[in-house]
Amino acid sequence: MPETREMVMTEELVRKIVREEIAQAFKKDPAAKRACIISSKGTLDWAYPPLILGTAAAAAGMQTAIFFTFYGLNVIHKDFERRLRVSPVANPAMPMPVPMPDLVTALPGMQTMATFMMKSMFRKKGVATIRELLDVARESEVRLIACQMTMDVFGYKQEDFIDGVEFGGAAAFLSDARKSHVTLFV
Amino acid sequence: MPETREMVMTEELVRKIVREEIAQAFKKDPAAKRACIISSKGTLDWAYPPLILGTAAAAAGMQTAIFFTFYGLNVIHKDFERRLRVSPVANPAMPMPVPMPDLVTALPGMQTMATFMMKSMFRKKGVATIRELLDVARESEVRLIACQMTMDVFGYKQEDFIDGVEFGGAAAFLSDARKSHVTLFV
Amino acid sequence: MPETREMVMTEELVRKIVREEIAQAFKKDPAAKRACIISSKGTLDWAYPPLILGTAAAAAGMQTAIFFTFYGLNVIHKDFERRLRVSPVANPAMPMPVPMPDLVTALPGMQTMATFMMKSMFRKKGVATIRELLDVARESEVRLIACQMTMDVFGYKQEDFIDGVEFGGAAAFLSDARKSHVTLFV
Repeated sequence: MPETREMVMTEELVRKIVREEIAQAFKKDPAAKRACIISSKGTLDWAYPPLILGTAAAAAGMQTAIFFTFYGLNVIHKDFERRLRVSPVANPAMPMPVPMPDLVTALPGMQTMATFMMKSMFRKKGVATIRELLDVARESEVRLIACQMTMDVFGYKQEDFIDGVEFGGAAAFLSDARKSHVTLFV
Repeated sequence: MPETREMVMTEELVRKIVREEIAQAFKKDPAAKRACIISSKGTLDWAYPPLILGTAAAAAGMQTAIFFTFYGLNVIHKDFERRLRVSPVANPAMPMPVPMPDLVTALPGMQTMATFMMKSMFRKKGVATIRELLDVARESEVRLIACQMTMDVFGYKQEDFIDGVEFGGAAAFLSDARKSHVTLFV
Repeated sequence: MPETREMVMTEELVRKIVREEIAQAFKKDPAAKRACIISSKGTLDWAYPPLILGTAAAAAGMQTAIFFTFYGLNVIHKDFERRLRVSPVANPAMPMPVPMPDLVTALPGMQTMATFMMKSMFRKKGVATIRELLDVARESEVRLIACQMTMDVFGYKQEDFIDGVEFGGAAAFLSDARKSHVTLFV
């Protein structure tokens, strides 16, 4: 045993050791290794942020869960590719070929055009599709959790959702989120 | 005094004790016992998530505060039942009896229909009403805080709000939120 | 050396010291000193909350970063004053002089009117403009970070943004956010 180990522990020495260990422990703060994201919107544009942030968190080694609730259930619905659309109405921030008043963006066909435009902008820039992001999420062990209560309200069944989805409520979300630094409501 | 207490404290023994205590302390991390939620939307659909999450957090034993700001002030307005409506326009994710272009969802009467539909879907499925959730929140000591700055901007007075509401600003929100793992902007 | 320092360290004494130090450490929890906010909306109304919360966090002594992504890139675009508009459509919570069905709020000119109304309401109540909030943010060392991926998708260049903006991706956001108690997606 080295001589240093035999020296008498004084209060000062103990406090020094304790502070070292605490500084270390905060660097390994378990909450820094977890991310809990709520996906509550059901449009194509708002389907992206939870999946991009969730897969990025998993890539950074974090335990990640995405909770799909309200309109967000669309994102993990088996028929998500047809369901995820985007509306230019009431979003003056949406890039359109020419500026348009809300009344024009509300015309029949404009939702289809905006959805097509967004998909093609993302594809041209090499951004993953929603399908690819859902695949990456499941491969990288991001938990995809459907909110049971809103499933009931909107009349969804478990078999309406893609493979690998779990089911839970607000309590399930909170029991993870309370241990996570990153908690986001998208 | 048992013999173990008399043994000489070596650095190794001290570090072992410290690590035990820190692991215990992180399990009781005070930030895991607090939730701070911002409610910023003033429609019937978006009134639900902050109240559902807030009351669920309180049920899980967490100290919970909901800050109502911008359009979210509608949720705690005395007249919330008339004010909280839902618009089907620009939300292609809203379940409607038949698919409709934005122009049709913008017709007079469609807001009333969408509001009625949502209320009746929630009632049929046994989900609490906003009134019930506000009651549960106050009974379970969820703090309901109205944002003073946006009250001023929108011309609200303290007496416009339901009983039990507190008043504060962004600084009040942050002083709670910085101690909370769960922080959500709805 | 005072006599207390020489007393034999027992396990009990060591645990007492450790608990004191841990309680102190949690009060100085580094995560309580950081805020990470995502600004994802590109309208005048939703430009406010990230900037108000971000500057309030900096004023409270927190290290603060705001990440601008998707439509939120509008907020830090050099031309933000013309770009940040507000639409009354599909927001039945927007205070309007008289109640209006969605079809009327969609008429040409209503976006301009709503944008004008909101600016004048905020000015009358002495709320800082977006320009002033951006200035305060930069003076108080709030980091303004533009999301590289969505810049590419929407075809923005670095020179399109106001001075002082940094550039980064979801990984940059997460590396800050995982060390922060306050994490908000606006």
